[in-house]
Amino acid sequence: MPDSLDQLDARLLAFAQARDWERFHSPKNLAMALAGEAGELLEHFQWLSEQQSAALSPEQTRLVALEMADILIYLIRLSQRLGVDLIAAVEEKMAINETRFPVDPEGLAAEDEPRRA
Amino acid sequence: MPDSLDQLDARLLAFAQARDWERFHSPKNLAMALAGEAGELLEHFQWLSEQQSAALSPEQTRLVALEMADILIYLIRLSQRLGVDLIAAVEEKMAINETRFPVDPEGLAAEDEPRRA
Amino acid sequence: MPDSLDQLDARLLAFAQARDWERFHSPKNLAMALAGEAGELLEHFQWLSEQQSAALSPEQTRLVALEMADILIYLIRLSQRLGVDLIAAVEEKMAINETRFPVDPEGLAAEDEPRRA
Amino acid sequence: MPDSLDQLDARLLAFAQARDWERFHSPKNLAMALAGEAGELLEHFQWLSEQQSAALSPEQTRLVALEMADILIYLIRLSQRLGVDLIAAVEEKMAINETRFPVDPEGLAAEDEPRRA
Repeated sequence: MPDSLDQLDARLLAFAQARDWERFHSPKNLAMALAGEAGELLEHFQWLSEQQSAALSPEQTRLVALEMADILIYLIRLSQRLGVDLIAAVEEKMAINETRFPVDPEGLAAEDEPRRA
Repeated sequence: MPDSLDQLDARLLAFAQARDWERFHSPKNLAMALAGEAGELLEHFQWLSEQQSAALSPEQTRLVALEMADILIYLIRLSQRLGVDLIAAVEEKMAINETRFPVDPEGLAAEDEPRRA
Repeated sequence: MPDSLDQLDARLLAFAQARDWERFHSPKNLAMALAGEAGELLEHFQWLSEQQSAALSPEQTRLVALEMADILIYLIRLSQRLGVDLIAAVEEKMAINETRFPVDPEGLAAEDEPRRA
Repeated sequence: MPDSLDQLDARLLAFAQARDWERFHSPKNLAMALAGEAGELLEHFQWLSEQQSAALSPEQTRLVALEMADILIYLIRLSQRLGVDLIAAVEEKMAINETRFPVDPEGLAAEDEPRRA
């Protein structure tokens, strides 16, 4: 199977170019659009309990999935404008996280992520 | 080349499980964490002009890339908890966008995205 | 007691002008800064249960209060740049909400806010 | 003139109580709702230039003002649930900012806010 992220990447670039949207898609604007979509994602969950959020109906799941798609679309567009390799960035970040949050020999994280905030 | 998104997916799942973080990672909480990271992304760009945002230094680009990594990490985690296929969701959303924003024969989008807001 | 919001308003304007920050404080940039602070607010709550979020320690409450202050500061600055009367805007919005979410004679809202999402 | 923020405060509390919304309005949920509204605010500005954002039409300004109202409404609700005095929090934050960003005798800020990010 080919790398699906690379395929999306090319398709999203062609989509923006065909509509002459490069002029709107500065990194600053794309970051705003991404954060706007993250806000829409929140709205689906804000009045749900954590339990309810883990038991969405198929229709709710589909709507949430489309918001997630918007976020990934802007993330890919932003990576194109900045020349960032998203996969490499995640790998770098995971290496940082592995050092920062070592696994405890007792099976518990040495430091609980919640304290990170 | 194998599908790098799938590889990250498995690695992120193992990372969370090894630290017993599944208990914190409800869809509601992951949506919040993702939006928090989107807020951090904004902070890199908020006082820059659009032009400056397109001319980041290598060090700034690296810091922005790490914020983008955080967003993708939480997006993948959320897709795992909700059983969402991210690539399929982007494909569905792109099909919607292609209908919604047709390419004008004159080479301009029939409807400018900015009017969408 | 004088109107404390008006007092803050004048003080925030003087603060920005003394530092020549008007040049950075376009409405677009202020909206970004506000959303960035909203993201920081989220980070305090993202791994807490709803119950925990209602039982913060005094120190946590103080940190959250300072994030809320940042949000209000940027909201006031944005209202200055746009010529918006914040109090009047809230009054208009509350009138809309009163029509949209009437109180049920049985003591329950005719339409639960959660369905709004 | 009475303190308009205090008046809004009482009215918003009565509004939520009459609809039995206190059960949804945990601090965690209110933080999410606030951030969701901040995301909607962004959407008004994301494709505008900074100059355009400073020259909104009356209708655009009204729509933006209503988003700002939503943010202030949730900020006041959150302050109620956490027992936070918003005005005092802004005063504390401004004292911090005055130390952090002293005014330069030459009329320039000693440290430009943009470097803060």
